[in-house]
Amino acid sequence: MQALACGARPAIRHPPRGCRAMRLVQFRRVPDAEPRLGLEEEEGSDVVDLSACEPGLPRTMRAFLEMGDTGLAAARRAQESGRHRVPRAEVTLLAPVTGPDKVICVGLNYKDHCREQGVKIPQEPVIFSKFPSAIAGPFDDIAHPAESGEVDWEVELAFVIGKKGKRIAEAAALDHVAGFTVANDVSARDWQMKRNGRQWLLGKTFDTFCPLGPALVTKDAVADFDNLGLRCSVNGEVVQSGNTSQLVFKVPQLVAWVSRFVTLLPGDVFLTGTPPGVGVFRKPPMFLKRGDVVQCDIEELGTIRNKVV
Amino acid sequence: MQALACGARPAIRHPPRGCRAMRLVQFRRVPDAEPRLGLEEEEGSDVVDLSACEPGLPRTMRAFLEMGDTGLAAARRAQESGRHRVPRAEVTLLAPVTGPDKVICVGLNYKDHCREQGVKIPQEPVIFSKFPSAIAGPFDDIAHPAESGEVDWEVELAFVIGKKGKRIAEAAALDHVAGFTVANDVSARDWQMKRNGRQWLLGKTFDTFCPLGPALVTKDAVADFDNLGLRCSVNGEVVQSGNTSQLVFKVPQLVAWVSRFVTLLPGDVFLTGTPPGVGVFRKPPMFLKRGDVVQCDIEELGTIRNKVV
Repeated sequence: MQALACGARPAIRHPPRGCRAMRLVQFRRVPDAEPRLGLEEEEGSDVVDLSACEPGLPRTMRAFLEMGDTGLAAARRAQESGRHRVPRAEVTLLAPVTGPDKVICVGLNYKDHCREQGVKIPQEPVIFSKFPSAIAGPFDDIAHPAESGEVDWEVELAFVIGKKGKRIAEAAALDHVAGFTVANDVSARDWQMKRNGRQWLLGKTFDTFCPLGPALVTKDAVADFDNLGLRCSVNGEVVQSGNTSQLVFKVPQLVAWVSRFVTLLPGDVFLTGTPPGVGVFRKPPMFLKRGDVVQCDIEELGTIRNKVV
Repeated sequence: MQALACGARPAIRHPPRGCRAMRLVQFRRVPDAEPRLGLEEEEGSDVVDLSACEPGLPRTMRAFLEMGDTGLAAARRAQESGRHRVPRAEVTLLAPVTGPDKVICVGLNYKDHCREQGVKIPQEPVIFSKFPSAIAGPFDDIAHPAESGEVDWEVELAFVIGKKGKRIAEAAALDHVAGFTVANDVSARDWQMKRNGRQWLLGKTFDTFCPLGPALVTKDAVADFDNLGLRCSVNGEVVQSGNTSQLVFKVPQLVAWVSRFVTLLPGDVFLTGTPPGVGVFRKPPMFLKRGDVVQCDIEELGTIRNKVV
């Protein structure tokens, strides 16, 4: 991983020229308007309004992904047409996926994060979940609940299912993945670790505890998802810095494992776990407070930035 | 509670005449056709095809509930019109709600179920979840996964949210409840209790592990949801028999509690916990095997019956 200077954006490794990579987004031009589908050429660029280019397309990423290759072909036509570009200043990005059937999270999935808390590396993935209602946009506020005094950050590589499947073999797993995005698995440690009968759900699923984005980057755009630097900063200070090479269970293994239990559906979001540096294991522990700004960066995918309010 | 003879249907206490009770269903007339909305006058009766009576209505219960009183008024017009009745033999019932944002489950919520396993009655609700993909119809098969040797039953009173809300006061909670239905919180005890880092999710969320139905019974149709007999039978033998009067945290408390954490949305399903008699705490333990038929009955709501395959 390229060293990431404090406050700097992670270097974007550009995919090979001629590849058909896309950065798919959900956006609004007017507050409270219906979401629209779009494409950004690169992070932060103007957005091609897919919903204007191809009015027959559905308006949600989930329904768009359900169309499979037909939808992606329409998106490529729109991208190549150069039409219906919306200046970035007029765009509010939403999470690239909202309202999925599942937000599937993996615990203890970085070797160095296991060492940080003195626990053994798991023999099987530890799976928990957030409710879809926790999803927030890439630049939305994180609402600090009065109920918690221990709100913590977790930068994570997220991936999104593009094709329905059950009992998917590892070798076929990537056929079921549409692409990747950046997540913050915000966690109220008091509720996760000490309350609710030690079931993690409530501490993980407060409203806004799952910022996602900025774009769903199609898998053909990512050179090597097993070697992506990822980082979290709080108020400009780097608190987590890791690399997906440290993942215990990698993307294909997670798809295969979870699909033994449940049918995966287009739009389902996986959060693959977090590298070391979370607040609860710092000495002394450090938690988010109102006014803080948390930024999560992953190479090739981009940056999400959320203010705690 | 009226005594329930083995194999008999629970007695239906009829709501007062003139009340505007409805039994809302989702159904299909042809396999793999799009679901339709319907109404049954009483359990097992012919179904009024709401989607035919009111073609402008959405086709899913979730979208229908999002319409609030407008949707319910349309349903009442259809019910009173007497038109578009479909003979029961031509109807396959689906779960009354599919694809909700949340399936919210409550653990250890019957006083007598806590005693059965020798644990203290919780001071706060214990909340866990299933993925919506686990929902099955009221007479669908339960798929016994090869991964588990300890598949267990749990009859539960379920309720469905009809109106969006956050931080809902107990006194206002029922304004947010559309109605009630019967659930079986099928549970793979090995995965719930011994695997997955003791996070219950995987053991609770195998495909088909949430049979629901037969109808969403609107709340005005239920005389007293704090005094409903509920029962589970396996191959005709009663294994659970309880009453919602034994609930530790009652419906308004659960709405208030969970809405401190998350925004509740129309269609969200709560499973309120199970009375004593589950298989894992029997001596010796008893689990479901392929070929078994599990039946869950709740007074005034109806019966679901699922074969294990």
